[in-house]
Amino acid sequence: DKKKEIIIRSIQVIKMRLLSQTIKSSMAIAARLSARNRITLNNRMGVIRHVHIEKRLSDLGIELPPLGTPKGSYALTSRQGNLLYLAGHLPMPTDGKLMVGKVGDTISPEDAAIAAKWCALNIISTLKAELGDLDNVVKIHKLVGFVNCVDGFDAQPKVINGASDTMFEIFGDAGRHARSAVGTNALPLNVPVEIEAIVEFKG
Amino acid sequence: DKKKEIIIRSIQVIKMRLLSQTIKSSMAIAARLSARNRITLNNRMGVIRHVHIEKRLSDLGIELPPLGTPKGSYALTSRQGNLLYLAGHLPMPTDGKLMVGKVGDTISPEDAAIAAKWCALNIISTLKAELGDLDNVVKIHKLVGFVNCVDGFDAQPKVINGASDTMFEIFGDAGRHARSAVGTNALPLNVPVEIEAIVEFKG
Amino acid sequence: DKKKEIIIRSIQVIKMRLLSQTIKSSMAIAARLSARNRITLNNRMGVIRHVHIEKRLSDLGIELPPLGTPKGSYALTSRQGNLLYLAGHLPMPTDGKLMVGKVGDTISPEDAAIAAKWCALNIISTLKAELGDLDNVVKIHKLVGFVNCVDGFDAQPKVINGASDTMFEIFGDAGRHARSAVGTNALPLNVPVEIEAIVEFKG
Repeated sequence: DKKKEIIIRSIQVIKMRLLSQTIKSSMAIAARLSARNRITLNNRMGVIRHVHIEKRLSDLGIELPPLGTPKGSYALTSRQGNLLYLAGHLPMPTDGKLMVGKVGDTISPEDAAIAAKWCALNIISTLKAELGDLDNVVKIHKLVGFVNCVDGFDAQPKVINGASDTMFEIFGDAGRHARSAVGTNALPLNVPVEIEAIVEFKG
Repeated sequence: DKKKEIIIRSIQVIKMRLLSQTIKSSMAIAARLSARNRITLNNRMGVIRHVHIEKRLSDLGIELPPLGTPKGSYALTSRQGNLLYLAGHLPMPTDGKLMVGKVGDTISPEDAAIAAKWCALNIISTLKAELGDLDNVVKIHKLVGFVNCVDGFDAQPKVINGASDTMFEIFGDAGRHARSAVGTNALPLNVPVEIEAIVEFKG
Repeated sequence: DKKKEIIIRSIQVIKMRLLSQTIKSSMAIAARLSARNRITLNNRMGVIRHVHIEKRLSDLGIELPPLGTPKGSYALTSRQGNLLYLAGHLPMPTDGKLMVGKVGDTISPEDAAIAAKWCALNIISTLKAELGDLDNVVKIHKLVGFVNCVDGFDAQPKVINGASDTMFEIFGDAGRHARSAVGTNALPLNVPVEIEAIVEFKG
């Protein structure tokens, strides 16, 4: 009958809609599972990368200096979203004796480049303390390096390379940063180099 | 009959789906109302906090200097999302007479620290003009302080503390910033201190 | 009959729901089409703006210098979201001969302002290489200009105006930036000016 036909059609429509909803639900569940797998995968990769960076530090024979203390009434870092603003860091080696001197007068450019390396390592000590794990470093975006030097000294880039090379060696591509290197006639505590940084991290 | 049963079932399925949709709509409306309440609550909290900061300024006996004017063809601020980049600010007290001098020559470190305080207060005047209400300041993330000084002067941190302490006193934890303090042989208009800032705000 | 009535109602409900779904689908398609139109419109506006900026450059008689090379082991830029951190740029004119000198000694403030303009144009060359199209520049947020000068020189703002004016001329309001201008006793390769930038772009 026509009546019967109408009922059958209406039920077919309902079945199709239920089927369609079931498919949607299944896809949603699949998507959620896939996301969970991604997270698990990321965690696994995190562990692998962690071992990698810590291993790289020891492979390079690098011992991080102890965490520095602010030389005034400020903080070593400030977090804005996934961005970390870092204070100007000074060249404190692991022995705790701050490097001092003015390039072209009481310290050579070569030794100032070593000072720049220590600034970078102090930045990395701060990152480790702040982020817990150096594998949370996503990108070293920016360094500004100030070189305490005599008038006429013009090789600030070579000095600050001591820091830039260190970032590349340790973090690889994540250590590739934009940079300014400038001279100055005077720095805090008569250090030869002061370096500040902007770093992106993952939560 | 079987026919009747089928019809009843199909109608039950339709009713259930309509009910499910009604529940979803109700939840959506509830979520929207809840969001509205949150906004109202935030506004109320904003009012309370506003009273607090303005009161703190008067409790500290601080009168903000008049809004500065750019010393060149630039702007005092630039907004990027919830971030505000601030130009280098100079030490202009409320009397409008710019502080001048080179530390170690024509101005003492103590007076330069006062100049640094005025730089901070000029930054705060700019923030008030830009944000309308100082309670919209979420965080002072970064200061860079340049100290005009003779060769060999090495107490730039003490000078810039004049600004950092001011930020802490006024904004509390929201005033805790990362910082660089460096020397320089020359600054605009022969000021002893110039300070720039990066500040997060809420819309 | 009652039976017949029930069937008719249930079918009406199904029809209404199908109609409702059809309307939703239509609206979704309309939204998608509208979005596509917006994109097309943006592209068209992009082309118009592109012509505009490129035309403005040629109207101003400006030829961009060739893309610079980093003077050390760093990158010219680093991307963080829609933000671009740019390295300190030097005053390299189109002839490839780097401008040198110390203001107040071997170069005049007027020539140093021309050097600042070349720094800005080198920044723009980097932006073009990095973003493909200068119309992707959303905002020049921040410049920091370092002026290599003798002690007592106090017109750094006038020197750095050479860069700021260039940004305004080329980008209009998108070129309005916050700025710091400071002196220094020494810069890389003895240039009179070094300028770094923070720029927002669209993907």
